[in-house]
Amino acid sequence: MSYEILSTDKLPEYLKSIDAMESIFSNFDNLEVIEVGDGNLNYVYLISNRDNPSETVALKQAVPYLRVVGESWALTRERMRFEIQALVKQKELCPELIPEIYYSSIEMSVVIMENISDKKILRGQIIEGKTFPNLADHMSTFLANTLYYSSDLHLPSLEKKAAVANFINPELCNLTEEFVFTNAYEQHETNSYNEALTQADIDFIQHDGALKIAVAEMKYKFMNNAEALLHGDLHIGSIMTNETETTVIDPEFAFYGPMGFDIGAFIGNLFMSYFSHEHRQKLLGNEQLDYRTWILDTIASTWNQFETKFDALWAKHQADKDPLYFDYPGGEADAKLQRETFIQRVFSDSLGFAACKMMRRIFGLAKVADIADIEDLEARACIERMTLQLGKILVTQRDQFHSIEEVIERAKIISPLQ
Amino acid sequence: MSYEILSTDKLPEYLKSIDAMESIFSNFDNLEVIEVGDGNLNYVYLISNRDNPSETVALKQAVPYLRVVGESWALTRERMRFEIQALVKQKELCPELIPEIYYSSIEMSVVIMENISDKKILRGQIIEGKTFPNLADHMSTFLANTLYYSSDLHLPSLEKKAAVANFINPELCNLTEEFVFTNAYEQHETNSYNEALTQADIDFIQHDGALKIAVAEMKYKFMNNAEALLHGDLHIGSIMTNETETTVIDPEFAFYGPMGFDIGAFIGNLFMSYFSHEHRQKLLGNEQLDYRTWILDTIASTWNQFETKFDALWAKHQADKDPLYFDYPGGEADAKLQRETFIQRVFSDSLGFAACKMMRRIFGLAKVADIADIEDLEARACIERMTLQLGKILVTQRDQFHSIEEVIERAKIISPLQ
Repeated sequence: MSYEILSTDKLPEYLKSIDAMESIFSNFDNLEVIEVGDGNLNYVYLISNRDNPSETVALKQAVPYLRVVGESWALTRERMRFEIQALVKQKELCPELIPEIYYSSIEMSVVIMENISDKKILRGQIIEGKTFPNLADHMSTFLANTLYYSSDLHLPSLEKKAAVANFINPELCNLTEEFVFTNAYEQHETNSYNEALTQADIDFIQHDGALKIAVAEMKYKFMNNAEALLHGDLHIGSIMTNETETTVIDPEFAFYGPMGFDIGAFIGNLFMSYFSHEHRQKLLGNEQLDYRTWILDTIASTWNQFETKFDALWAKHQADKDPLYFDYPGGEADAKLQRETFIQRVFSDSLGFAACKMMRRIFGLAKVADIADIEDLEARACIERMTLQLGKILVTQRDQFHSIEEVIERAKIISPLQ
Repeated sequence: MSYEILSTDKLPEYLKSIDAMESIFSNFDNLEVIEVGDGNLNYVYLISNRDNPSETVALKQAVPYLRVVGESWALTRERMRFEIQALVKQKELCPELIPEIYYSSIEMSVVIMENISDKKILRGQIIEGKTFPNLADHMSTFLANTLYYSSDLHLPSLEKKAAVANFINPELCNLTEEFVFTNAYEQHETNSYNEALTQADIDFIQHDGALKIAVAEMKYKFMNNAEALLHGDLHIGSIMTNETETTVIDPEFAFYGPMGFDIGAFIGNLFMSYFSHEHRQKLLGNEQLDYRTWILDTIASTWNQFETKFDALWAKHQADKDPLYFDYPGGEADAKLQRETFIQRVFSDSLGFAACKMMRRIFGLAKVADIADIEDLEARACIERMTLQLGKILVTQRDQFHSIEEVIERAKIISPLQ
């Protein structure tokens, strides 16, 4: 059918018209439709059969504007094509971490997926102080599998280039370029500042030449290094979890970009959560130590497991004589050196991107609830200053860190565990 | 018309059918058609009106295979689309260095251009020992203009991404990946070796782990860094010159890649010419000094003028507030630091790519006549060893050179001017 904007009223009829839904719903007469979209871009509905609530799906539809702003901010529905393509590819590469896809239509800008409302958005749960023992394992698998298998380290050259072409995503990349890499570092109408921050706090970022040059370098890498298929927006609001499981959602920003961007997004968000809990754990009446230690351990473990898994994938396929591997005279010693040099560069990139993702959340339009929802503005400003301080260090000194533990030590100097 | 392979017989009728030819030819009854293609890929014809020889064009047509091998090596005609698109863009950016385009047809894989047979291929003329006082000026302009204006340093983000998509050129990039970055560094059926080279000479490259890792790094950059619209095959056989003018031709390898690849191609080829003239100048009965000094001066001047021109374009547009420029607190001092850091990285890339372009010409399928046409195989082997020696140094130590003069000094240690 040609494009039309769906609504709770229209949805039962629409679902009934889709063959693939016949294997989900035993009847379409008594469907419950709940709109749950709390995202910025799209509409999301959960649909269940009241006669048999285990028959349930989630439906996501893109509209030709930015939902959170309204029709005045046009944004093509093309983004749903990227989301569908990315979901399909990610599902192939890490099936346990991606929702089941039942149906998709580029024409209708619709995807119908598994209802995962047994899980909740990770950010809210981290704000509440919940721990997830498998999170680092799952996220390091997601990162290692999606980044390795979509890159030139694995794909034949022609196949990789076709994938790059298929994922050129100018509109949403442009949003990232503006909001992650530009506006927050300048006086810009879209910025907003906690009023408890001083001009000195703002100048700490916006009047630092070396920092701005470093941000421009990261922006250039973002724009030019088509290494791997990225999720493109991998903050902790794009991850849903229950006690044991993890699901990665919302890949409409997917494109071929630098590997470190996804890794940095996740790690940078966890560092902000770490800082925020200097305040939040007190509010919850807890000692800081346990929960904040869990966050830092999760950061360390995510990177270290990523490194191990990525290295293992590469080593495993070394023998396939894939495009970027030579028979080295030094055998495994040379091959290992090549992998280590590569991964160290990805590490440096990850720190630079983590920094940009952190700093923009303080001055830019889109905040993180971990910090921005702190009601005591002075307390919030303290957390914001920590975030800016680590951001500045990581982006300007990104080549000088050689392990995630060194980075964590630096974060602990800024905000001690006590 | 639908695609058919043209021939000397068919060409007069074909030209007559094209409206745009009516402003070139006063009549089509007495056309002389000469096939001149000496390239590997396509057919090239020069067509003149015998009644008025100033009425003349060059016509190039791609066939669906590699011309030099024959129909057994399929290669899609898609390459002519890239050539046409690149010619049009290059003509816009440096009009004096690109032939006039009269007509093009993607369907027929044909481009009809200015006949520039008042110029000859540069490689042959350098072999003969001719000098071109404007060459460095022209080539540095070509490089600065095409690389700057096609990049994110200048284009709006959406426009740049559309251009990248339009120039994804998998087949010809794949040829480069195989022939420039892979086969020559391994035992490979497409390689061929001067029989005067020893196993030690071959092992000098093929059994050096650090070198092979460095080549793999350059290959990865080639495959992943979509910085600017490249010519893609900018050796001295893709340049035509007379005493005062320069024309760049044959951009079918055009794609969005790392800036250093075009710069390195040109410079690397000139270093091979420099080495070859240690032998050739003697053959010509000359002292080595003058001509070889001219080659080195041309290398230095090309890079130094490129640096000045590229920097000037960037500085000039700084005020336009283009995507990658901030208002820096330190003003021009910060902006200059950003530009210098960027250009130093392009320099390092250029050396790495120059090295790969050089080394592959010794062991790989495609040789350069400067060296491969030397009949005395022992003398040729000496030149080949020099090339391999400089190649190894440049690719493994590319970050350690900070001026082109340092590189030239290194080349002079390998092959003294005397």
